Amino acid sequence: MIERVLIIGTGLIGASTGLALRTAGFSGRIDGWDQSSLELNAALQMGAVDGVVGNQWGALELARQADVVVLAVPVLAIKDWMQQLATVMGPDQLITDVGSTKLEITELAATLFGGKDQAIFLAGHPMAGKESGGALLAEASLFNGAMWLFTPTAAESTPLEKEWRSWVGFFGARSLDMDPKRHDEMCAWVSHLPQMLSTALAALLEDRFGDAPEIAAIGGRALRETTRLGASPYSMWRDVALTNTEPIAETLLSLEQRLTHVRENLRTPGLRDEFTLANRFRAKR
Amino acid sequence: MIERVLIIGTGLIGASTGLALRTAGFSGRIDGWDQSSLELNAALQMGAVDGVVGNQWGALELARQADVVVLAVPVLAIKDWMQQLATVMGPDQLITDVGSTKLEITELAATLFGGKDQAIFLAGHPMAGKESGGALLAEASLFNGAMWLFTPTAAESTPLEKEWRSWVGFFGARSLDMDPKRHDEMCAWVSHLPQMLSTALAALLEDRFGDAPEIAAIGGRALRETTRLGASPYSMWRDVALTNTEPIAETLLSLEQRLTHVRENLRTPGLRDEFTLANRFRAKR
Repeated sequence: MIERVLIIGTGLIGASTGLALRTAGFSGRIDGWDQSSLELNAALQMGAVDGVVGNQWGALELARQADVVVLAVPVLAIKDWMQQLATVMGPDQLITDVGSTKLEITELAATLFGGKDQAIFLAGHPMAGKESGGALLAEASLFNGAMWLFTPTAAESTPLEKEWRSWVGFFGARSLDMDPKRHDEMCAWVSHLPQMLSTALAALLEDRFGDAPEIAAIGGRALRETTRLGASPYSMWRDVALTNTEPIAETLLSLEQRLTHVRENLRTPGLRDEFTLANRFRAKR
Repeated sequence: MIERVLIIGTGLIGASTGLALRTAGFSGRIDGWDQSSLELNAALQMGAVDGVVGNQWGALELARQADVVVLAVPVLAIKDWMQQLATVMGPDQLITDVGSTKLEITELAATLFGGKDQAIFLAGHPMAGKESGGALLAEASLFNGAMWLFTPTAAESTPLEKEWRSWVGFFGARSLDMDPKRHDEMCAWVSHLPQMLSTALAALLEDRFGDAPEIAAIGGRALRETTRLGASPYSMWRDVALTNTEPIAETLLSLEQRLTHVRENLRTPGLRDEFTLANRFRAKR
């Protein structure tokens, strides 16, 4: 039975996890830690966590006593915490994460967790978020209707893993188990490519037009939607780019080639074929 | 005083114009024509038009009697109608359009309209729409809060032009006068590039994944928004691509180069600089 949860990283996803646990009826204790005292205090005031600790050592101390530790920091920080938690946690304790890429994390987990005398690690990734982060935007309903992916390494779930998966279900999320390599490749297409694309387009327009009032005056929903993710923070995406470089580069190269094809066919029936394919893609969604 | 309006093309924009006129208090007569009897009858049933004609000749007959003819068809069809209307309309009659590109239309208008014994032409472009067209999606409020661009050729507005501009204001739209060449270049950036990008991305995903269930299962808001315009019809965008080829090609080439830059900098501080620029672009919006 999960009675004590420690959330490391009380930003948008971490704080929303705390709120979702509460709303779903979790009656145990939830502690939190974040390197930003602003995020941490915001999470505390919102009721996303019941208590906080003042530094990393305090967090490790709480991890010793927790049933579940949720790592809700960028991917490289997750890997760093995994190393530290491996030294203080043991069997009957679960570590789970919400990182955007899964291959490096599950490879590291295989060397640190899951053995005799070791804690259990369940790699997870809720497909939810906003273009801006931070505890203040956290919501109990963030995962409602969203997909929460898992990339388990063991064939069978332990009781603790099963219980954590039920909480995710109580959040209103659907879930799906995937191979971690496949996860990273698919997320490159459906999440990382749209992000890089939106960032590139917004950066290009900023470079080209800066403060030109016309862009703001005439740009409508098309511009707003295709550049919305341009507001996303580098701090999170740096780690995604570093831990999923090859798959992302592959999707970018494919899109570059596709745009070249469109450009070379603006006056040919090749453009019609592109619209036909795109219409078909959208008709299923 | 505008008492008779003829709307040629009763799809999304044409039918919305009829509905917006009515909602804004226009008490005159509105007739409509569309080459699709489905669109035409839908517009009639919604009250977007009061009457319809059965063929192109009937439409020309009504044009003779109209104070204002609104051309709400794709750009090449607009140019075709302009040629035909020039033979039947005269002074004290206004033709206006809602086409997505303005340079070719204003150049043609200069040869056909605005002289002694000729009708007046006011080129317009409401920055409003949906990814799917058709009268059934028409709304009186479509232009509320939207920008309605004009690319007038004469220095001063005639009373009839002024009256049409007031109706646009009554629709809740803001308006701005632009040079037609500048209009087409700016629209290439804020509208045509997002469209081609979205089409290319959706087409690429359709080619690559077809019916793979995972795309639907794990794709979230990022994928949905960046591919939404993939549903747009070729019929309209063909004419945009044909009448604004060079500016669109330029924006596509710039974006291709920008994506290459992102791809080559996934592991360098160059990626941070892209996010910084993109963040700055979004912070103003």
